[in-house]
Amino acid sequence: MDRRGFNRRVLLGGATVATSLSLASEATGAGERARSGVAARTAPAGGAVRHVKLYAEKLTDGQLGYGFEKGRATIPGPLIELNEGDTLHIEFENTTDVAVSLHVHGLDYEITSDGTKLNKSHVEPGATRTYTWRTHAPGRRKDGTWRAGSAGYWHYHDHVVGTEHGTGGVRKGLYGPVIVRRKGDVLPDRTHTIVFNDLLINNRPPHTGPDFEATVGDRVEFVVITHGEYYHTFHMHGHRWADNRTSMLTGPDDPSQVIDNKITGPADSFGFQVIAGEGVGAGAWMYHCHVQSHSDMGMVGLFLVKKPDGTIPGYEPHEPHEPHRADGAQGAEGAGGAHRH
Amino acid sequence: MDRRGFNRRVLLGGATVATSLSLASEATGAGERARSGVAARTAPAGGAVRHVKLYAEKLTDGQLGYGFEKGRATIPGPLIELNEGDTLHIEFENTTDVAVSLHVHGLDYEITSDGTKLNKSHVEPGATRTYTWRTHAPGRRKDGTWRAGSAGYWHYHDHVVGTEHGTGGVRKGLYGPVIVRRKGDVLPDRTHTIVFNDLLINNRPPHTGPDFEATVGDRVEFVVITHGEYYHTFHMHGHRWADNRTSMLTGPDDPSQVIDNKITGPADSFGFQVIAGEGVGAGAWMYHCHVQSHSDMGMVGLFLVKKPDGTIPGYEPHEPHEPHRADGAQGAEGAGGAHRH
Amino acid sequence: MDRRGFNRRVLLGGATVATSLSLASEATGAGERARSGVAARTAPAGGAVRHVKLYAEKLTDGQLGYGFEKGRATIPGPLIELNEGDTLHIEFENTTDVAVSLHVHGLDYEITSDGTKLNKSHVEPGATRTYTWRTHAPGRRKDGTWRAGSAGYWHYHDHVVGTEHGTGGVRKGLYGPVIVRRKGDVLPDRTHTIVFNDLLINNRPPHTGPDFEATVGDRVEFVVITHGEYYHTFHMHGHRWADNRTSMLTGPDDPSQVIDNKITGPADSFGFQVIAGEGVGAGAWMYHCHVQSHSDMGMVGLFLVKKPDGTIPGYEPHEPHEPHRADGAQGAEGAGGAHRH
Repeated sequence: MDRRGFNRRVLLGGATVATSLSLASEATGAGERARSGVAARTAPAGGAVRHVKLYAEKLTDGQLGYGFEKGRATIPGPLIELNEGDTLHIEFENTTDVAVSLHVHGLDYEITSDGTKLNKSHVEPGATRTYTWRTHAPGRRKDGTWRAGSAGYWHYHDHVVGTEHGTGGVRKGLYGPVIVRRKGDVLPDRTHTIVFNDLLINNRPPHTGPDFEATVGDRVEFVVITHGEYYHTFHMHGHRWADNRTSMLTGPDDPSQVIDNKITGPADSFGFQVIAGEGVGAGAWMYHCHVQSHSDMGMVGLFLVKKPDGTIPGYEPHEPHEPHRADGAQGAEGAGGAHRH
Repeated sequence: MDRRGFNRRVLLGGATVATSLSLASEATGAGERARSGVAARTAPAGGAVRHVKLYAEKLTDGQLGYGFEKGRATIPGPLIELNEGDTLHIEFENTTDVAVSLHVHGLDYEITSDGTKLNKSHVEPGATRTYTWRTHAPGRRKDGTWRAGSAGYWHYHDHVVGTEHGTGGVRKGLYGPVIVRRKGDVLPDRTHTIVFNDLLINNRPPHTGPDFEATVGDRVEFVVITHGEYYHTFHMHGHRWADNRTSMLTGPDDPSQVIDNKITGPADSFGFQVIAGEGVGAGAWMYHCHVQSHSDMGMVGLFLVKKPDGTIPGYEPHEPHEPHRADGAQGAEGAGGAHRH
Repeated sequence: MDRRGFNRRVLLGGATVATSLSLASEATGAGERARSGVAARTAPAGGAVRHVKLYAEKLTDGQLGYGFEKGRATIPGPLIELNEGDTLHIEFENTTDVAVSLHVHGLDYEITSDGTKLNKSHVEPGATRTYTWRTHAPGRRKDGTWRAGSAGYWHYHDHVVGTEHGTGGVRKGLYGPVIVRRKGDVLPDRTHTIVFNDLLINNRPPHTGPDFEATVGDRVEFVVITHGEYYHTFHMHGHRWADNRTSMLTGPDDPSQVIDNKITGPADSFGFQVIAGEGVGAGAWMYHCHVQSHSDMGMVGLFLVKKPDGTIPGYEPHEPHEPHRADGAQGAEGAGGAHRH
């Protein structure tokens, strides 16, 4: 199995471009922490000004992707993590032969970073444009009202390919996740992105995942984004989360519903953290769209939770794993085995 | 009108199988309590280990149902109520001629109780399998984070008939409600289940309810589950609830939206309690899917709230009530009159 | 640009009928308040008994509308604002040639004000009927449970034209917004209504808005209602809100998710307040349904946020603004320019 997807955060911390977007790699896994009584790692205060290059590229199979490095675009695009207060300047280069753009949800940006044709903030083929995204911590306004902060599970996407709303660009893969964290938010061991885009997950062929691996006790975060035309219901077996900002209850008085199934429509996004196998143990836990025809048509993947010895009880892959490359043509976040579900 | 549906909780407390799932029957109705100043009854702490038999059966009309007793399967299947901390062992017997299974949402179960073919946890015709569901109270993890409890309005369903996602089993009626209560959760006088399954409610013919009766002041609980292919919006006239875990605000600071209309998709579930006729009085209050074509096609039932003298102002059933049997072939939770809406 | 839509609150305070529904007009805008440190205006306690006339009318283009004055029906119908504790008696006159009704969500009404044929509470052509809506503040019941108040972003609509669920009446424009405020709720500078009705916004032709104008710093409120057959995802560029009752976090402990995109289905309603351009500045900010085909087909409008000098950076209307009349045949709340998006 290709581990690239699991190491994306480290990848972001790599040499070329992404140091400014990475979090420190960790000595102790969250699962270990939960067992040992070491406090969960949490997000620091923001306030940094960061710079990154982002490319829109045509992939070899005709799809389109975003990537931090030339020739390494993926679908979904790379995870962008910020802390409230951070500013991100994105030098965006369009290497494709059509106009593309970068439109973000949830963050603060001036109209010149809107990523729409209406506001002339798209990028012609071969051209470059800097988009600036800002974030802010919550606080009290002068009139006494409370201003919400930027923290959330957000996303970015094209807004111009095919139509004025980017219907063609989104369909071909021009989308990716953004997480803005508040000081004190619990950090996961790793983050995976699941995009229900029309009837596909992460633009992959039906019935081919992606699958995600973890070991019992790992703190795993999922960002779930919907795109396209259809509504979906995201369901994960054996794990659940609170339907609020962080997916974690603030304590016994938090009235949020705890769910394992959530209706979503295009451009909705949410995220959640689970302790892999908590209370249920290792296993091949399905996640899927619960619209019956959608799951039957292959909107299914596996959350493969291993015992510490690496085994998964009762799980026999139908075919040998053929690792997918997370970079390049069939790029996919956390790409797992090629077996059919 | 058949009262069986209304007495399901007592039924569960009956001789054969279900004592372990029942709550004590009550001397004083909640409505009376609300008027008299007697505190609402609340759920006790859990921790019990319970055992129950459950059967999958073919009904005489070709539909499929779950039931606690042989020959008494219903659609929806029987309500299973637990308190956080309870464990339930379900000896599940498949009396049908196809493989079926039992998959539950929200509860803790090992992969051997997943109810999927992927995990070989389905049941062949004539065979028996024990599924174990566990629940837990909320609490603090060793790493300082707060772990949500199991309390919620959940549900169970088949995951193997027809397709690997149980599309055929769910369509034919293999689904039912689960409620897990937290110590201190307010208990209702009675609970009704409403399942929007494709374009039907509880697999009944269109325009035939089910209707549910109550007297002004009763505390009535509804579990609302969606299945199948379509999205719906559940609406009830004259009554509303908070869009949170319990449907009740925790107090003046609870920010939850109060609603009387909620979008849902397949496998979504929520529940709510209302005081029948509170602030609005007796009446034939419609509940329906608010997608216009769905209500027009008959996704409608009545919440019949009577005055203490048993009358309902302005309500004239279109046809004489023909009680439906809550057990047997056309079994249906809270089956009401046969008049057309 | 026609300013009538923006002055609706003042209109409601006009001579003929609506004083009882109006809020005091304001000397200082919220934006100015937010900048200057003057506390936000808040809703007073309710308890008033109000009377209003409402007309159902046929518009010149065959659509149907509600209006406070004869010959001035609009689509959506006029905003009805109440404070918790208020009672509203609506003398409703049907000037059309078909039976119509008035059904409200969220408020307290006896079955005689249900607005359904089932409950014989519709109104024949030429006839008049008084509907009574009550509201209540939250409080503790005698049994110790907390009763939610009526505050919320609600709506009213026909329930009888075309079908028993008013499919024809709703389609033709018989719908409008209701806001019930709690003592202390923050009041906006102005309120706009956006109704996603089938594939149109406020029954207007596709690609023609409505657009809404504001100046940076204004506190603007949107009531968003869905009707008809389809699900939608409401998205606004550059602005976001908390997904709770008021759209505003109660403070740092409020766990509500902050969103800029929300799935909705028929009869769902929510509202939110934004400070125009807060953190992002002036601009032509799109709002649209994010279901790709819906936005492509024209479910799009603009939130035109001006600088204090009245300019909007980068915004060039495609065509000269041709004001729409907010009253009369093509009546539309907050009608904006006629240019195509």
